[in-house]
Amino acid sequence: LSEPILNDISHRRYNLLRGSWVLVSPHRNKRPWQGLQESPSKTTLPEYDPECYLCPSNTRANGEKNPKFERTFVFVNDYSAVKEEQEGYHPERKDDSLAARLLKAEAVTGKCYVITFSPSHHLTLADMTPAQIVPIIETWTNLYTMHLSPKSSLAQLARSISIPPLNQTDLVKPSAQYRYMQIFENKGTTMGCSNPHPHGQIWTTTSLPEEPKHELEQLKKYQQEHNGSHLLVDYAELESKEKERTVFENKNFWAGVPYWAVWPFEVMIVSKQHKRTLVDFDDEERKDLAETIAEVTRRYDNLFETQFPYSMGLHQAPLDATEEEIEASHFHIHFYPPLLRSATVRKFQVGYEMMAEPQRDITPEQAAERLRACDGELYRRKL
Amino acid sequence: LSEPILNDISHRRYNLLRGSWVLVSPHRNKRPWQGLQESPSKTTLPEYDPECYLCPSNTRANGEKNPKFERTFVFVNDYSAVKEEQEGYHPERKDDSLAARLLKAEAVTGKCYVITFSPSHHLTLADMTPAQIVPIIETWTNLYTMHLSPKSSLAQLARSISIPPLNQTDLVKPSAQYRYMQIFENKGTTMGCSNPHPHGQIWTTTSLPEEPKHELEQLKKYQQEHNGSHLLVDYAELESKEKERTVFENKNFWAGVPYWAVWPFEVMIVSKQHKRTLVDFDDEERKDLAETIAEVTRRYDNLFETQFPYSMGLHQAPLDATEEEIEASHFHIHFYPPLLRSATVRKFQVGYEMMAEPQRDITPEQAAERLRACDGELYRRKL
Ligand SMILES: O=P(O)(O)O[C@H]1O[C@H](CO)[C@@H](O)[C@H](O)[C@H]1O
Ligand SMILES: O=P(O)(O)O[C@H]1O[C@H](CO)[C@@H](O)[C@H](O)[C@H]1O
Repeated sequence: LSEPILNDISHRRYNLLRGSWVLVSPHRNKRPWQGLQESPSKTTLPEYDPECYLCPSNTRANGEKNPKFERTFVFVNDYSAVKEEQEGYHPERKDDSLAARLLKAEAVTGKCYVITFSPSHHLTLADMTPAQIVPIIETWTNLYTMHLSPKSSLAQLARSISIPPLNQTDLVKPSAQYRYMQIFENKGTTMGCSNPHPHGQIWTTTSLPEEPKHELEQLKKYQQEHNGSHLLVDYAELESKEKERTVFENKNFWAGVPYWAVWPFEVMIVSKQHKRTLVDFDDEERKDLAETIAEVTRRYDNLFETQFPYSMGLHQAPLDATEEEIEASHFHIHFYPPLLRSATVRKFQVGYEMMAEPQRDITPEQAAERLRACDGELYRRKL
Repeated sequence: LSEPILNDISHRRYNLLRGSWVLVSPHRNKRPWQGLQESPSKTTLPEYDPECYLCPSNTRANGEKNPKFERTFVFVNDYSAVKEEQEGYHPERKDDSLAARLLKAEAVTGKCYVITFSPSHHLTLADMTPAQIVPIIETWTNLYTMHLSPKSSLAQLARSISIPPLNQTDLVKPSAQYRYMQIFENKGTTMGCSNPHPHGQIWTTTSLPEEPKHELEQLKKYQQEHNGSHLLVDYAELESKEKERTVFENKNFWAGVPYWAVWPFEVMIVSKQHKRTLVDFDDEERKDLAETIAEVTRRYDNLFETQFPYSMGLHQAPLDATEEEIEASHFHIHFYPPLLRSATVRKFQVGYEMMAEPQRDITPEQAAERLRACDGELYRRKL
């Protein structure tokens, strides 16, 4: 460890990407745990489940029938958090009233999708080969392209990518131009996921949400303060040299536990070159990204020999953005997994963390070392 | 509802106290839930548990014996996240290196306490009368006073309060001046609490943590922009008039679901007068605060007829603060409870929420209406 003292003392680390601090208490990992035990999913799943609304050829809640898809399948979420059409909002409070000053709201429209990662009910990203993950990245790319502002400099670039088209005639262009697209996955019941069939979600909104907004501000600031260099390019370069927080890397991507990680085994995947969005990648880069996702998720499952729960999400340039915002953006993926010590003991970000500041017990360096060591075949295949 | 449209459309609300947005999707509450079911605590507890490390006269993990206390009892946490003494941290990275630029850490020292709320193992705040809660407020006040900077204008004021002293000779003055004290409670296994004996925690640090830092900035900004008036005084006044988000109020405190609440049944207790910290309160105010805490927690338990889990925390002026910071601070309490629809179905702040922006389903006005209706005797007493 380049600074071994940080394994012994309580300290805070600064998250340069978010502009916020996290409290690290390494010695606290020794504390005995008598609280809640998670119940890891033990059941082995069938390849096809007639009751699953995500399996091929099954009928969904709204009466529509899924096609017999072979790779991914996308549909509009039946219980979308935002919708394309709704009544307009015209605040009635008077400009000089206390209410107008204190109660600020704005309407949000948008579109929410569900995307299945595979026709097989029993697979997860950890079970899949990079070649099986590439189609997921292609589908994300196609959806991102479909929603890009035609005025964005990225739109032309997007048209020139040679990947298989979505090939879903039922998916229509959004009725309005949205500002931001959040691609994410909740995995495991602990992370609010109610169907084990491998799938993710995409929420697209007229607003730029809080997290990407903060990141964009930090990225811009760094660029301005350091002669146009990119925070995450510099960061990936440094981490790839320091190695102590690296979990896996290949030619185009670095994956590791960020210096400022909040969750015990949090991982960030960062493009080593300056890539602003999915549409910047070529074939080789998509393959390298798929390999990195496979390596991270397999190590996760190997760590506690369980279906490792997490929330995962992509950050990249907004759909409707200024050239300055596009140039400042840098493609990366966050994995936020809750488990701490075993398949049944998680970290709670509760009282102190909610009221004051996120807190972690083991250091990011210790977490990275353990994940590095979880290389090799998926534990389930060896049983 | 003063703006009924907000019950129908997706919108964002701005949290003026934190300076951040939350996404509200009222229609989404209709979505069926097939995911994780919480297991509410069903067991009835004994008044005294020989195995509990918080019950009077029992021996704790470190071999010390609890006194036969009658109201509250305070001790230093055996597994403190921060400690008073540790080695110093002197970053060795060179100033002009990439590492020095990207990897920022600082040491944190401090002191962590556990505080039992009652000698009775089987009670919770919801079971207690205001008269039983007053001693807890007094203990918080004594601990806050004990850690106040002697240079603070609050220190003199604190010495003039007439409340029973802590009366614990084993508690020694902290060895250094700390910047901030976070008083909080995690209740229920869902909130990472491992012992049902009623208790809270206090973490005191050399750093001003993220949440109170953001709030202080927002409070200062409001004061500057509005001729010295106080954000939370104005807010309590407005809410007390509008009524639709009020859960309970008395002469000195307003309790309700904030306009910008993130958690389904989130509640904030705000002092109606400008009070900066616990040491600003007199006897009547402490009684009113105790009553408000009792009314909120009893309604919580009545809502789903369960031991309602939550994290709760006090925000007030830092221990070591400038006069400007002290004057901007305003005493309030946050309750962040995770349950959404029943004792077994919670709200998950996961993928979208972690990667993009917090999201809620029912509106704060709907939540407040339901909590108002949960008035009356504690459900357990009626069984
Ligand atoms: O201190 P406890 O009760 O052992 O632990 C609980 O509260 C702490 C402060 O919010 C959290 O850091 C822990 O994750 C949680 O389990
Ligand atoms: O959309 P789902 O899978 O029904 O729901 C899950 O993910 C959403 C997006 O992170 C969250 O808002 C929900 O709380 C969670 O249960």
